[in-house]
Amino acid sequence: MGGDHGPAATLPGCRAFLASHPRAELLLVGTASALAATHGWERCRTVVATEVVSMDDPIEVAMRRKRDSSLRVAIQQVKAADGAEPAAHACVSAGNTGALMALARYVLKTVDGIDRPAIAALLPNAKGRFTQVLDLGANVDCTAEHLLQFAVMGSALASAISGNENPSVGLLNIGEEAIKGSDTIKRAAELLRAADADRHLNFHGNVEGNDIFKGTTDIVVCDGFVGNVMLKTSEGLAAMLGGMIREEFGRNWLTKLAALASLPVLNHFKARVDPRRYSGGALLGLRGLVFKAHGSSDAFAIEQALARAYDAARNRLLDRVHDRIVETLQAMPVTAEEPAGALADPPVVPPVASPAE
Amino acid sequence: MGGDHGPAATLPGCRAFLASHPRAELLLVGTASALAATHGWERCRTVVATEVVSMDDPIEVAMRRKRDSSLRVAIQQVKAADGAEPAAHACVSAGNTGALMALARYVLKTVDGIDRPAIAALLPNAKGRFTQVLDLGANVDCTAEHLLQFAVMGSALASAISGNENPSVGLLNIGEEAIKGSDTIKRAAELLRAADADRHLNFHGNVEGNDIFKGTTDIVVCDGFVGNVMLKTSEGLAAMLGGMIREEFGRNWLTKLAALASLPVLNHFKARVDPRRYSGGALLGLRGLVFKAHGSSDAFAIEQALARAYDAARNRLLDRVHDRIVETLQAMPVTAEEPAGALADPPVVPPVASPAE
Repeated sequence: MGGDHGPAATLPGCRAFLASHPRAELLLVGTASALAATHGWERCRTVVATEVVSMDDPIEVAMRRKRDSSLRVAIQQVKAADGAEPAAHACVSAGNTGALMALARYVLKTVDGIDRPAIAALLPNAKGRFTQVLDLGANVDCTAEHLLQFAVMGSALASAISGNENPSVGLLNIGEEAIKGSDTIKRAAELLRAADADRHLNFHGNVEGNDIFKGTTDIVVCDGFVGNVMLKTSEGLAAMLGGMIREEFGRNWLTKLAALASLPVLNHFKARVDPRRYSGGALLGLRGLVFKAHGSSDAFAIEQALARAYDAARNRLLDRVHDRIVETLQAMPVTAEEPAGALADPPVVPPVASPAE
Repeated sequence: MGGDHGPAATLPGCRAFLASHPRAELLLVGTASALAATHGWERCRTVVATEVVSMDDPIEVAMRRKRDSSLRVAIQQVKAADGAEPAAHACVSAGNTGALMALARYVLKTVDGIDRPAIAALLPNAKGRFTQVLDLGANVDCTAEHLLQFAVMGSALASAISGNENPSVGLLNIGEEAIKGSDTIKRAAELLRAADADRHLNFHGNVEGNDIFKGTTDIVVCDGFVGNVMLKTSEGLAAMLGGMIREEFGRNWLTKLAALASLPVLNHFKARVDPRRYSGGALLGLRGLVFKAHGSSDAFAIEQALARAYDAARNRLLDRVHDRIVETLQAMPVTAEEPAGALADPPVVPPVASPAE
């Protein structure tokens, strides 16, 4: 039901995904009327939900009021109950990110040692590979400990995807020597250096904005505010440059002829940088696989997001990431301000304080 | 002396600037040996300094140890002593940004009501105009009051440059409804809304990263950390896309033929997005015009930065910006946490603390 275009984009995307993945099965969650269009589809089951979280619903509405939303029901499908296999192996949504995040965290819970889930995405880099960046907007005002946890999660994901057991981590910072980052960043660098010294991580050091697309490190960690601005600015710049290229080639009949001659080249370039191929990300740190497709996804982008979720589920990404996170965090000295495994929400029972302190 | 290439780039840039600006005069500051090359240049005077602040010198070194650095001496040239005209109307440096910022603030002081200077730059947007973004790295951990001051400074600069008396201001934020920014951003939005209600500013509201290159507002204000990451990421993305276009057109003889046919178009596009045309920025909020050219500037970029400084000085940018800042801040209710006009550096004499506290 989610995304700017709703079922008009998601359903054709699902259809294309099923066609290109002959062994995949889909479980579609939505309103009865939206799901009616899927009648007769092979390898496709449906689960009806009575409510829909809109793109601009506040989190409170998604959490407290719309109890039978398609978003919540979809997430529930990947929750393993009492050791039994969950109904679905991964959940994909193009819906309201804040609501998706909050519901996923509430329904699935975080992995032990992870306070907050993070959104990770792969961005293409000049080395012809991908840089994994997190967090892209799930968390603002991150502490140094959160940034360390992002580094652990990002490393776990990168090694699960690429097989590289020792992916390098960069901490996003600014370049000027004297004003090198906030206190949080400085402390995060210390934590990361300590984790590197103990061989829990491969910390490259500070990186700057340009290092993301240069591909200096396999992983770049940053606060969600910074990551979100970075990602959206990149989208805006790419769109502007694309528009300018079109404009230049459309100027007159001579340039249009040149465009005709360059069509295969331009199309190849366009396909290579097509943002729909990279749109969306993985929600890391949860006890279940959840993928976020871009809100503006069209059918092709939805198909790509489904393919990514399918690959992740087939590669048992969740177990591998989960194991690696637990392994690393257990081996590391406790650094979190909040006790390991605690949810960031205040615990219901306050911890007993020593009267001497 | 500054920049990655030093006099090898700055001197040819100066030469080109003098040739294209027949009424401009240059005052070059540097070591005697570097300045020797300018012997016999017309409309060019020199001031010898005995020391040079290197690109990675800490601020302390620039401030306390290298007292006769070319950077400091250059800034002193724009300081008006006792109402007399300063030796130079604007200062341009490609050197160490942190040191430039600290020295400029120390030597020139900030305008009344401005706590911290900011770096502002113009970025091209899809509307064929420019978006002015600040701060781009002079300040991290900005308060809501600082962001308000950036908005005032940015508005003053934009109206001085463009003649638009009511340029629109956007506050850089992230999109998700429920996690809409940190507390600082929320409070800054309140201050900006209040300033807009009183007609001191034209506050458009929150904008997202993609709005910068879309050109949604004339001005975008943000924390220096976020702005710096945004700018450097954009540079990295543009460089990667440029490299990919070259790669695609260089693939085989057919694509190379297409490139030949498209050469005028591609060159026009390249010139339009040439980062050297936009590199560098203005240091706003100081009692003197100071421009920062990009550290990696070549001669062309230096020439562009000089041209911008020259235009600013000719248009009496300083007075206009200064007047507008003072006018706006005086009309506004006092909102700064720090007393108006105070430097952020701790005062030498500690404030007297009430013993009762």
